[in-house]
Amino acid sequence: MIYKRCGQTVLIQTPPVVRASAAIAGKKEGDGPLGSRFDQIEPDAYFAQKTWEQAESAMLLRCLSLACQKADTPVEALGFILSGDLQNQCAGAAYAMRDTGAPYLGLYGACSTMAESIALGALMIDGGYSKTCAAITGSHFCTAERQYRFPLGYGGVRTPTAQWTVTGAGCVILSEHGDGPRVTSATLGRIVDQGVKDMTNMGAAMAAAAYDTLKAHFRDTGRSPQYYDLIVTGDLGEIGHGIVSELFERDGITLSNYDDCGRMIFDRESQDVHAGGSGCGCSAVVLAGHLLRAMREGSIRRMLFAATGALMSPTTSMQKESIPGICHAVSFEVKEA
Amino acid sequence: MIYKRCGQTVLIQTPPVVRASAAIAGKKEGDGPLGSRFDQIEPDAYFAQKTWEQAESAMLLRCLSLACQKADTPVEALGFILSGDLQNQCAGAAYAMRDTGAPYLGLYGACSTMAESIALGALMIDGGYSKTCAAITGSHFCTAERQYRFPLGYGGVRTPTAQWTVTGAGCVILSEHGDGPRVTSATLGRIVDQGVKDMTNMGAAMAAAAYDTLKAHFRDTGRSPQYYDLIVTGDLGEIGHGIVSELFERDGITLSNYDDCGRMIFDRESQDVHAGGSGCGCSAVVLAGHLLRAMREGSIRRMLFAATGALMSPTTSMQKESIPGICHAVSFEVKEA
Repeated sequence: MIYKRCGQTVLIQTPPVVRASAAIAGKKEGDGPLGSRFDQIEPDAYFAQKTWEQAESAMLLRCLSLACQKADTPVEALGFILSGDLQNQCAGAAYAMRDTGAPYLGLYGACSTMAESIALGALMIDGGYSKTCAAITGSHFCTAERQYRFPLGYGGVRTPTAQWTVTGAGCVILSEHGDGPRVTSATLGRIVDQGVKDMTNMGAAMAAAAYDTLKAHFRDTGRSPQYYDLIVTGDLGEIGHGIVSELFERDGITLSNYDDCGRMIFDRESQDVHAGGSGCGCSAVVLAGHLLRAMREGSIRRMLFAATGALMSPTTSMQKESIPGICHAVSFEVKEA
Repeated sequence: MIYKRCGQTVLIQTPPVVRASAAIAGKKEGDGPLGSRFDQIEPDAYFAQKTWEQAESAMLLRCLSLACQKADTPVEALGFILSGDLQNQCAGAAYAMRDTGAPYLGLYGACSTMAESIALGALMIDGGYSKTCAAITGSHFCTAERQYRFPLGYGGVRTPTAQWTVTGAGCVILSEHGDGPRVTSATLGRIVDQGVKDMTNMGAAMAAAAYDTLKAHFRDTGRSPQYYDLIVTGDLGEIGHGIVSELFERDGITLSNYDDCGRMIFDRESQDVHAGGSGCGCSAVVLAGHLLRAMREGSIRRMLFAATGALMSPTTSMQKESIPGICHAVSFEVKEA
């Protein structure tokens, strides 16, 4: 057996290919700066279902079907599906995938799920355990808002640090063969809890975990941040992005090529989203819709995607616990010509 | 790359070893027929914490520490921890593991988590992505009962088909080297939903998934049920166990070597548990405390462990959805002398 790990990072020896990706987003996300980059914009928040929870599942299943169609892979031929979401008991993903007939591995990484699922999927393909798999996650503003915060009809005032949960789903089909960006490494994150207790400031709660994983990635690989055309975190938003930038500045490193999906998805001036976008769907649609498309278009050749998750629950917050954060990172590279 | 998969099953080429396992259980579980097989019985339902949720996390962390101690592996030296639980947002596991310093991969497989975590951990070690890892899960009667059913003080009457959520945690330390039972295969389950809607009859809801995965395992490996000294499902209890037995009978197969952790952990006559035990902790403590010990003692040489999960949430049940089930299976074998 060849040992392929250094620290928290695996350098993947036979990097799986992103055979296809698909992104479906809600109306508000479609109105944002990346609207033209998503495969579908769905104006109906119910996705023709009776409840928001069913809507979230319908969105996920539609996204999986679309990605499989683009990859020319029947859903039932997937080696397995890696998925999870923010709903209690990850019901959004489970109910979406229950009729697919493919083996299912349920994950809970909160908003880090897109990176966790791609990391595990890429390793499982590199290991020879599957020829293809789907990594998929999403979130829905209405299911998340009423579960984590207030009933929607209550109309609670949002704080300046609050973020807006994205309605959207992103799916990546990984395959051992084919053309496209490749998953070349995976850095598995540790849980970091800096004592932040404010549920309306998730960016601050997750920033230290992002910093921890990015530092581990650079240390383990010997790469400098300049190795990448883009380093992108999941859904830290304006505040978390600023904290990560400042933490690196303290180390004498200016991240000139660093952005965050939560900053990219909405126009903060005109869309009233306060600190930016959040939710599993935020990094999922920005990656699957915009960033991987940019890699196929040639404008990004090397990218480090570091999705961030906040692992609290409404119960732990009521019990006055602080918010643990986590961040997993995967690098994508286009094969040099 | 060598492709190692047949159908839903991976036959593991360099089978990782169970370096150590640990089981911690509550008082009622300690009073049951397997009481003497657990490492620790904790009479205090609060595990010296302020809330039941904190108790569950304390139990999980204590179980991890004990397993690492038995494996002579410092917690921070683990390549990663695979864990999840039944609490909303899997907070029990996340809060338990937040200070360990090891990379963390959060899973949600409901009560199939013990098998899902061992399957993924074994593949990741076989693949060369880690030298060692921990697979750990648990459940707590009080956190599960109030989250899924009624406030405990309400004293709701339980139906005859209801099961009793186990208070307990089980941890398995997997390693590339060493002596002990080996994880020789993993069969990744599909979600199966037979339309059962009764939240007080989880055994019936999960039985079809167990049947589906067991059948896949026998088909993929060419093994007959007699290959194993013991085939054991997770927490189907008396009713689910009967359904699985009957489904195989219809195929002309009598499973004479088949039991279920939910039937084994309590004395149904004297302990008032109705259909048996359930919860992530049920199969976790029976495996980590009793079954793997029996393999080390030599009374079991080949075992197929098929943990079952019900993927509904209280919200989906209120919305009148049926209950999707899942089952992942791993085989353990003692190296022939």
